[in-house]
Amino acid sequence: MSFTKTPVKGMCDMLPSDMRLRERVLGMIKKAYGAFGFLQIETPVMEHIGNLTSRQGGDNEKLIFKVLKRGAELARALESGSGALADNGLRYDLTVPLARYYANNREALPSPFKALQIGNVWRADNPQKGRFRQFTQCDIDILGDPSNLAEIELIGATAGMLAAIFEGIPEIPGFTVHVNDRRILAATALAAGFREEDIGSALISLDKADKIGYDGVRAELLANGFAEEAVDRYLAVYRGTAPTDFCRDYCAALSPEVLPDGTAANLDDILACARQLVPAGVSVVFDPTLVRGMGYYTGPIFEVTVDGYGFAIAGGGRYDKMIGRFSGQDVPATGFSIGFERIVTILRDHEKTPTAIEGETVAILVDAAVPQERKMEVLRRARDLRATGATVVVQPMQKNLRRQIEALEHEGFRKFEKIR
Amino acid sequence: MSFTKTPVKGMCDMLPSDMRLRERVLGMIKKAYGAFGFLQIETPVMEHIGNLTSRQGGDNEKLIFKVLKRGAELARALESGSGALADNGLRYDLTVPLARYYANNREALPSPFKALQIGNVWRADNPQKGRFRQFTQCDIDILGDPSNLAEIELIGATAGMLAAIFEGIPEIPGFTVHVNDRRILAATALAAGFREEDIGSALISLDKADKIGYDGVRAELLANGFAEEAVDRYLAVYRGTAPTDFCRDYCAALSPEVLPDGTAANLDDILACARQLVPAGVSVVFDPTLVRGMGYYTGPIFEVTVDGYGFAIAGGGRYDKMIGRFSGQDVPATGFSIGFERIVTILRDHEKTPTAIEGETVAILVDAAVPQERKMEVLRRARDLRATGATVVVQPMQKNLRRQIEALEHEGFRKFEKIR
Repeated sequence: MSFTKTPVKGMCDMLPSDMRLRERVLGMIKKAYGAFGFLQIETPVMEHIGNLTSRQGGDNEKLIFKVLKRGAELARALESGSGALADNGLRYDLTVPLARYYANNREALPSPFKALQIGNVWRADNPQKGRFRQFTQCDIDILGDPSNLAEIELIGATAGMLAAIFEGIPEIPGFTVHVNDRRILAATALAAGFREEDIGSALISLDKADKIGYDGVRAELLANGFAEEAVDRYLAVYRGTAPTDFCRDYCAALSPEVLPDGTAANLDDILACARQLVPAGVSVVFDPTLVRGMGYYTGPIFEVTVDGYGFAIAGGGRYDKMIGRFSGQDVPATGFSIGFERIVTILRDHEKTPTAIEGETVAILVDAAVPQERKMEVLRRARDLRATGATVVVQPMQKNLRRQIEALEHEGFRKFEKIR
Repeated sequence: MSFTKTPVKGMCDMLPSDMRLRERVLGMIKKAYGAFGFLQIETPVMEHIGNLTSRQGGDNEKLIFKVLKRGAELARALESGSGALADNGLRYDLTVPLARYYANNREALPSPFKALQIGNVWRADNPQKGRFRQFTQCDIDILGDPSNLAEIELIGATAGMLAAIFEGIPEIPGFTVHVNDRRILAATALAAGFREEDIGSALISLDKADKIGYDGVRAELLANGFAEEAVDRYLAVYRGTAPTDFCRDYCAALSPEVLPDGTAANLDDILACARQLVPAGVSVVFDPTLVRGMGYYTGPIFEVTVDGYGFAIAGGGRYDKMIGRFSGQDVPATGFSIGFERIVTILRDHEKTPTAIEGETVAILVDAAVPQERKMEVLRRARDLRATGATVVVQPMQKNLRRQIEALEHEGFRKFEKIR
């Protein structure tokens, strides 16, 4: 028999302490978004392979775990020698399934629809340290709300959730919500001399500034054939800018020909209003350098970073055209994706793992020779203790009683009863 | 673009009301088993294909969703023309993964180890009404406890959990826990004249009595070539028997040559002790006709049926040899599998679905023309209401305000504030 003890490459067994931490974080996420009226939904882990390879998923489409056809269909596919061996695939994100879900269930859902999805996704990546081939994603989306109340509520709910989860960790004093707008990014490129059709490419390069610096971005843009004058004019804007409270001053330099009317006012309204909702320790800033990777964003975009570290822990934006590409009918949509695995990793690094069972705990150790009447009495007592909310185990007394008790203490048990 | 709105065949999109019900049941399951010290664990949904096809899974092995190899490995497999196109498969139950998990993590786990697993499994069945290709299983197992405290705690925890979940449904007045022992089943067959090596086959036929009646079982046993005399002697036992409080009278007729010493006393101890733990409305009986399908059981087996309906809602037993077949080292093991989807279906049929958001609810509807100051004030008020535990949505006021309010009422919102 070919039996393998370890999990499939890049995937993890969750120990009880892992689960305790994850369940606690999930509980806080559900509670925080629940207070804002977000409704939990779930889709199957498998999607039709055609839905997953419709070019909405970017590079993730190369990383699909495909599910082999079965029976006669597989036989036909093998016989024909074509490549269509798979009919389904495991989802690589929660956005494609949400678009399908909304198209399928729209009639049964409220509008606007505030969705909370928590689920595993799979990517056949070459796993690096701290990255997995199965991991939990947490997405919150508001579908059908064209107003900026969607952005404001999303930012408020997410900032509150993060503050609650990381409360009491002095190394994480706060968060910064960076806000920008895809249309401001586009306008900046147009104003510098880029053509409309080159904006996507320019933004892909600009997004690398964190990693390769503006000189690196410059080299890449030039290598991609853009005019030196436009590139230097373009990057001068970003080199000379820093996050500010509002975007109106930055946008004043952009003519109405490149920036749609009202874009700056809308973003400033989001900034001002979101500040009413976020808890102490969370800043909300206009950050003209913020570029979100996915090309499907159409309006305001946002990212939450951890103060003092700078890395992102959540991000999202408005994507008004995406659902329509799936369902044939445009639906305004704004969403946030939470870095669930990153949150768990940070909490573990700061030893916030609840390593033991919490609350009142009793371990009752029963000798094998105890008469039935006594055993029944003990079981009744265990039942009564559990009714008061205590965690109670009844287990056979082991030969090495000291070691047994030490192990139970490690698990979190505090009271012991020895029944002989 | 080939876009399909419906989920993959045999799988379900979960609506918010579905999720609310499922989350509530899951919460009750976690709480009930938590009080008994069960620890939640999780394994990846994918397992090595070799682990899934090691003949522990019975017919389920024919129903595996296999995951296609990728890259160079797939190319090699296709070139060689052999059948090994898949390296992984989706799990069809939680038992095989538990055996692998325990072999892999034993050093980090307490002993005895009380495990609670809740997770989806996948079977490429031809889905019938009410059966799905992705569904949630809930397994609880005690590994490393050779004593019957394992059976007693499992029965007690499961009965308590079921009673709590179905509380207040008059159509479901109670449950019956049926208990038997694989060794008593074997002894009955041996005493009737079956050979040791024919017991498995005899039990497979006997297990069908529910569906085809004892005459059908008789016909099948005869067709399988068993002697008429033995078959009639065998079935006479079952035709003339009914569940009783204890098994000692039934077992008195079985000689120590066919029934290992202490089997009846052990089972009677389980029956007596389990009764100390189960809540009112739950009976615990010895049922000599109980046969659990899986061949891996080695000792006491049990099944919980719903009074007045008779169908099983949970079942399990002791399987002391199974973990060893995976890990090379025998580990005493007893487990229960809960029919989670069946529980959810019953609750829905009895309209116990929490169809609406519960607790205090406020919907604030904001006209688009409201000045920023007013909007900020509203958002602060929403924040304060949420801090008191209320569920609050802030959304744009729609043209058809009456329809908007009706829809929100349907969702569970009770208070409305119109901001103009």
